[in-house]
Amino acid sequence: QIYRIASIPGDGIGVDITEAALRVLATLSTTLGTFELETTTFDWSSANYLTRGHYMPEDGLTQLKAFDAIYFGAVGWPSVPDHISLWNLILPIRKALNQYVNVRPTRILAGTKSPLVGCERGDLDWVIVRENSEGEYAGQGGISHEHSDHAIGTELAIFTQVGIERIMRFAFETARSRPRKKLTMVTKSNAQRHGMVLWDRIFYEVAKGYEDVDIDKMLVDAMTVRMVLNPKSLDTIVATNLHADILSDLAAALSGSIGIAPSSNLDPTRKNPSMFEPIHGSAPDIAGKGIANPVGAFWSAAEMVRWLGEEKAADGLMRAIENVTAAGVSTKDLGGSADTKTVTDAVCKEIEKL
Amino acid sequence: QIYRIASIPGDGIGVDITEAALRVLATLSTTLGTFELETTTFDWSSANYLTRGHYMPEDGLTQLKAFDAIYFGAVGWPSVPDHISLWNLILPIRKALNQYVNVRPTRILAGTKSPLVGCERGDLDWVIVRENSEGEYAGQGGISHEHSDHAIGTELAIFTQVGIERIMRFAFETARSRPRKKLTMVTKSNAQRHGMVLWDRIFYEVAKGYEDVDIDKMLVDAMTVRMVLNPKSLDTIVATNLHADILSDLAAALSGSIGIAPSSNLDPTRKNPSMFEPIHGSAPDIAGKGIANPVGAFWSAAEMVRWLGEEKAADGLMRAIENVTAAGVSTKDLGGSADTKTVTDAVCKEIEKL
Ligand SMILES: CC(C)[C@H](C(=O)O)[C@@H](O)C(=O)O
Ligand SMILES: CC(C)[C@H](C(=O)O)[C@@H](O)C(=O)O
Repeated sequence: QIYRIASIPGDGIGVDITEAALRVLATLSTTLGTFELETTTFDWSSANYLTRGHYMPEDGLTQLKAFDAIYFGAVGWPSVPDHISLWNLILPIRKALNQYVNVRPTRILAGTKSPLVGCERGDLDWVIVRENSEGEYAGQGGISHEHSDHAIGTELAIFTQVGIERIMRFAFETARSRPRKKLTMVTKSNAQRHGMVLWDRIFYEVAKGYEDVDIDKMLVDAMTVRMVLNPKSLDTIVATNLHADILSDLAAALSGSIGIAPSSNLDPTRKNPSMFEPIHGSAPDIAGKGIANPVGAFWSAAEMVRWLGEEKAADGLMRAIENVTAAGVSTKDLGGSADTKTVTDAVCKEIEKL
Repeated sequence: QIYRIASIPGDGIGVDITEAALRVLATLSTTLGTFELETTTFDWSSANYLTRGHYMPEDGLTQLKAFDAIYFGAVGWPSVPDHISLWNLILPIRKALNQYVNVRPTRILAGTKSPLVGCERGDLDWVIVRENSEGEYAGQGGISHEHSDHAIGTELAIFTQVGIERIMRFAFETARSRPRKKLTMVTKSNAQRHGMVLWDRIFYEVAKGYEDVDIDKMLVDAMTVRMVLNPKSLDTIVATNLHADILSDLAAALSGSIGIAPSSNLDPTRKNPSMFEPIHGSAPDIAGKGIANPVGAFWSAAEMVRWLGEEKAADGLMRAIENVTAAGVSTKDLGGSADTKTVTDAVCKEIEKL
């Protein structure tokens, strides 16, 4: 089986870790011999924008549709305002390719440590299902009376029945597929009393079709407290675009480092390619130094391979990653002293033993 | 000096902890003899709503204006939808009385422990300045096509120049008054590219008047990571209504318990009374059992007394509270086994020694 992968390293450490991930994927494919990857790299980045005036060419989104999956590094660079870079690269891809789910698993990998006192490996094992197409990221709003002394800015969060139903169904399916069959829905409908109330209502409606799933509801503020003080009580979590963005970064930190956390931007209809990216950003301060933690990138690569149907390869890659973290070969953010290449070499070596 | 206090115990443990706070305040006033409190209690609550159809009477907000300060317990009860209870009691008070600042200090009190490995007392000492009048809590939005299969819900976040400027100025003044003179501004203007961009711009404009304050900017998601992994690097923090709501609960958890954290809803113009409330909610599960942690309520009472101009009394009350936590007299959430009354008795005893 040959899979066509579009690779978009993007900015900063996105470049370092994408290179590392592609090496690991190549080693995986060669070692197992069960699938091949044909990778095309796109230089869509802030550098591109600064020299040529665009992130992707006009037909960029159409080009991506020809691929089986997209591997994404990171985007964002100090000399371009963040809302320009994001709304010209990562966010249009998520939206145009109908990647309405963003799956963000978090657990404490072997050999790594949670910053929480007494939080051991089995105590924190979550999957955050993030709504990825609307809500607070709907993109509407504006500024009136700009540069007067009475300017007004707005942001319109939009929640649609279709959008809510499909993310809830995905979240319930995810919860059902996990041993504990537990789903926590996050909301802030006490203060955000309009659209968010629809979010709540549809959650309970969809729940009727999943009576085997154990549900509960948390306000987003109280949820952070529960994540810190009672991590074991959580399993699958569903939240809006913004809430889940915040909670997933917190989750990564509580599992040890933002550098290990993966994400999958999925179109569950499979009519469009899905996109896989570590949740960390472009980290301009350490870009190009070869010291970025590639584990989040490897884990994202494993999720990509899994989505393509290569379960065994994905499991093998995860084992290889954890053998390396367990052996203490890790970057500074995890308390080690290895650089990106050393970690990558070690993971490749583990893959070769599969 | 006599101060007129409006007390609104509200729901659940709000009742328990308000009673405790009023006892402590009475002891403080009697012991020091420097000021008197004349307290009027209002039974505005979910129980009131369920029997009489309203939280406060029609002239409730006008009644409150006659007081020097408001002490608030908690609101929210399972038999009333949260958005009804909040938008009929706490949120109208904050808005109508121009309490546009919500100040939320967090530190690790003597004798209490952070859940973070190696995080000692001096390592976490923050003040979160929350915008309290607009943003994601502006209250506009709605649902169209309700109960069709294509309903749409919206929430409109509104950021105004007046609203942003005044909260930024307050935040800079707060930062300036603290030893480290450090202000971190939180935003998500990379994804929320309209109103939130105004938030950023005005921050930098106001900053020009505060060159002695050291500033930086964080995205709200990355901010949670920094709070967990590098608490010492933060001091004063300014964020929108929703972002600060989330971050302040997280802050309380990282300092040991949501039960200790205070908040001050301030009208800095002093044309209206300000309101003081612990940040925890009504906790229906432990309501009326006499086991709620009253420390957040006491700390809020200290902030009230400070706002009224009684600095010495406020400092004395804080000392009394910390003498008690240091002695290990604490409720279950802090690892102790004392009930509300035991903690309250102990604090009163400490006050009598002042
Ligand atoms: C880069 C940015 C648009 C993004 C988001 O907010 O979705 C990032 O924080 C993430 O979590 O993937
Ligand atoms: C009760 C609720 C309206 C409130 C808020 O969201 O402001 C609470 O969470 C708080 O932090 O004071």
